[in-house]
Amino acid sequence: MTPDPQSLGERAAAMIAELGAISAEPGRLVRLFLTPEHRRAADLVANWMREAGLTVSEDALGTVRGRLGEGRRLLIGSHIDTVIDAGKYDGPLGVVAGILAAGALANAGRPLAIDVLAFGDEEGSRFPATFSSSSACAGVFDRATLPLADRDGVTLADALTRYGKKAAGIADAAYRPADVAGYVEIHIEQGPRLEAEGKPLGVVTGIVGQTRLRVIVTGEAGHAGTVPMRLRRDALAGAVEIAQALERIAAEHPEDDMVGTIGRIDAQPGAVNIIPGQVSFTIDLRSLTDRLRLDAVARFQAEARRIAAARKLEVAFDPFHEIATAAMAPKLQDTLAASVAALGHEPMRLASGAGHDAQVMTRLCPSAMLFVRCRGGISHNPAEFCSVADMGLAIAALIDFIERFKP
Amino acid sequence: MTPDPQSLGERAAAMIAELGAISAEPGRLVRLFLTPEHRRAADLVANWMREAGLTVSEDALGTVRGRLGEGRRLLIGSHIDTVIDAGKYDGPLGVVAGILAAGALANAGRPLAIDVLAFGDEEGSRFPATFSSSSACAGVFDRATLPLADRDGVTLADALTRYGKKAAGIADAAYRPADVAGYVEIHIEQGPRLEAEGKPLGVVTGIVGQTRLRVIVTGEAGHAGTVPMRLRRDALAGAVEIAQALERIAAEHPEDDMVGTIGRIDAQPGAVNIIPGQVSFTIDLRSLTDRLRLDAVARFQAEARRIAAARKLEVAFDPFHEIATAAMAPKLQDTLAASVAALGHEPMRLASGAGHDAQVMTRLCPSAMLFVRCRGGISHNPAEFCSVADMGLAIAALIDFIERFKP
Repeated sequence: MTPDPQSLGERAAAMIAELGAISAEPGRLVRLFLTPEHRRAADLVANWMREAGLTVSEDALGTVRGRLGEGRRLLIGSHIDTVIDAGKYDGPLGVVAGILAAGALANAGRPLAIDVLAFGDEEGSRFPATFSSSSACAGVFDRATLPLADRDGVTLADALTRYGKKAAGIADAAYRPADVAGYVEIHIEQGPRLEAEGKPLGVVTGIVGQTRLRVIVTGEAGHAGTVPMRLRRDALAGAVEIAQALERIAAEHPEDDMVGTIGRIDAQPGAVNIIPGQVSFTIDLRSLTDRLRLDAVARFQAEARRIAAARKLEVAFDPFHEIATAAMAPKLQDTLAASVAALGHEPMRLASGAGHDAQVMTRLCPSAMLFVRCRGGISHNPAEFCSVADMGLAIAALIDFIERFKP
Repeated sequence: MTPDPQSLGERAAAMIAELGAISAEPGRLVRLFLTPEHRRAADLVANWMREAGLTVSEDALGTVRGRLGEGRRLLIGSHIDTVIDAGKYDGPLGVVAGILAAGALANAGRPLAIDVLAFGDEEGSRFPATFSSSSACAGVFDRATLPLADRDGVTLADALTRYGKKAAGIADAAYRPADVAGYVEIHIEQGPRLEAEGKPLGVVTGIVGQTRLRVIVTGEAGHAGTVPMRLRRDALAGAVEIAQALERIAAEHPEDDMVGTIGRIDAQPGAVNIIPGQVSFTIDLRSLTDRLRLDAVARFQAEARRIAAARKLEVAFDPFHEIATAAMAPKLQDTLAASVAALGHEPMRLASGAGHDAQVMTRLCPSAMLFVRCRGGISHNPAEFCSVADMGLAIAALIDFIERFKP
C-alpha cells in the first residue's frame, strides 16, 4: 500500500491537538496518571481506535489496547500522560501514529496482528515511580510501588481503585512472551540532533540507563537572627553544596551522554526567618554506560556524605527509580532503517537520552524506536513542536515497517 | 508593692500553655496573622485583659489593646502570631507579662497609665511583609503592603476585610506621639547568651537591622535526559551557586552578629525529570551595623549577577522587608537594669539578633526590651522553653520598671 504522508501528518496533528486540550489546568498542559484527565484522554483514544477498526480493551493499569488481526503480534505503543506544563507531542505522537497505521492497514484489508497500546505512566510525574503501565504489559510490574503516594498522599493502589481498577488484575495485564513478536514506538526526539543533521527521522540504537533518588539532608531548624553562622546546622546550606557536587560529577562524561538534574527541592519548615532543618531534593542521573552511571552515583553519595559530615548534618538517600541501559534489537533497527530509506531519507542512528516505555518492553520482546525531529530540540515545554511533514513521514515509515516485519 | 515572682511565673506558664493550644494544625503550633486561630487567641487575650481590670479595644490591624489609667502612657507589648511549627513562648510571654503586670498594679490600686498591646504580625509568616501591627500603632504603616498576597493568593487587604476590619481605619490606629511616654517589651532571648552567662534576664542595647529579598533565577526548562550539561541553562544549578555566595558573604562579619539565611526555595516546574526553568528563594540578612549589612547585600547582588551571567541565566531581586538597626533608649535601658538589680540579679546587656516590634516602636517613642533566658538558645522550634522562675522574675522586674518609670 502507498500511504500519503501529508494527509497522515495532518490527521495526526489534528488528533494531537485534540488530546493536547485535555488538561487538569487551564492555560497549561498537565495530564497525570489515573486522574480525570487521564480518563478523558483514554476515552478519546479508545474512540479513535474503534473508528480505526480496532477492538478496544483496557488493562488493570488503565492502558488502552486496540487489537487488530489474530496470532503472534507486533505491539505499537507510547504514552498519553504528560509532565507538568508539557508539550503535546511527547507520547501522544506515538499513540496516534499506531492508530493511524493500524487503521490504514485495516482499511486496506490487511488485518496484520497488531496491538496498539496507550500507556498512562511514562513520565513518572505523579508517583515516585514510573513505567508502571509498560511494566505491567511486560510482566515486570513491581508491586512494591503500590503503597507509594503522590504529593497529596494518595497511594498508587488507592488511585487505581478510584480509577476503577483492581490491583489483583495486574498479573493478567502481562503479555505471554510467546504471543508477542516485537515492540515498536514512534516518539519525538526531545533533543536537537536530527534537526542539526537535517534529518526528519532517526533509528534509536539504545536508551540511556537512569538512576533517580531522593536526597534528604537533615540539620537543625533555628531562628534566622540569633544562631551565629559558625554554630548553624543549616540543611539548605549543606544541600546546595551537595547539589553542586552532582553538577560537577555529571559533567565529567559528556562522551557518554551523562547528565544529572535536580528537578525538585523543598526546604522545611519553609519560612523566611527560619534556618531550614530539613531539605529534600531529587536527583536524576543518566548515561549510556551502566558502569559509568553507577560509579557516578556512588561518587556522588560519597561526596554528599563528606559534605554533610563536615557540616554536622545527616544525609540519606532514597532511590526510587533504577533502569539499566536498554539496547534496541539490531534486526528491528535495520528494518526501520530500510523503511526510512524507502521513503527517500537517510536513516540516522542515534541514542536516546530520554527514558521510554520501549526500555521496559525490551524485557518482554525485541524492541525498536523511531525518533521524529522536533524544533530546537525543545521538549517538556509548551514550545515543543513537530512538523506535519515529519509526522506524516514517520507514520508512513511505520506502515512500511509493519508490512516488512516478520513475526 | 512586692509581687511574688514564683506565683507570677506559674500564672504566666499556665496562660502561655493555654495560648499554645490554639493552632491551625494538630500536633504543631501554627498561628498566622488574621486567621481563625488569630481570632481565637485575640479573644482569649481580651478576656484575660478584662479579668485584669483593663478596658479592651481592637484596632484596624486586629491588635488587642488593654487600657489602664488615664493620661500620657507607657505601652507594653509583644505578639501572638507564630512561625510555622513554633515554640509557645516567642511573643505570648511578653503579652502575658504585660497583662499580669497591669493586673497586679490595678489590683494594688495603682492605675498607672498603661496600654498592653497584643500584636498579630511580628513573624511575617503569612504575608511577604511583617510588623504591620506595630507599624500601624507607630503611625508608619506602609499601605503598599495591602495588595501583597499569602501563599493562597489572599491579599493582606482581603484578609483584613475577612477578619472584620476596614483598611480605612488603619490611620486611626496610630498613637499620637504626645500621648505616649515609652514602649517596653519582654521577650525570650531566642539565643544562647544569657544561659551561657548564667543570667536569667538581659537588657537589650539594640536590635539588628534586616534586609529580606526574594531572588528569582530564570533559565530555560528542558528535558532532563536530552540536553547536554554544557548546553543547559539550569536555573537550579545557578541558584545553588548563588546560595553559596550568600553563606560565604554572611560569614565574613561574625563580630557584627551578621547572619544570612535562605529559608524558602522553590524550583519550577518542579518535576523530577525536568531541568528547572525558574527558581526563587528568600534571603534574610541581618547585622548590627546598617552600613555592613547594606554593603553585604550589594556584594551578594553583584556576585549573583556575575554567577548568572556566566551561566547565561537571568537574576532578579525583589526586596520585601528592610529595617534599620534600632537602638534601645539609654534611659529606659538603665531603668530596666535598676529593676533587674533590685531583684538581686546582675543585669547583662546584649544586642538582639532577632527582629522585634520594639524596633518599629522606636519610630514612635523611646523603647526598651528585657530578654528572658531560654533553654539551649532554642527558638522557632517546639523545643523552645523558659522556666517558671525566670518568667516570674521578668514579670516582677516589669512591675518594678513600671513603678520607676517617669512618663
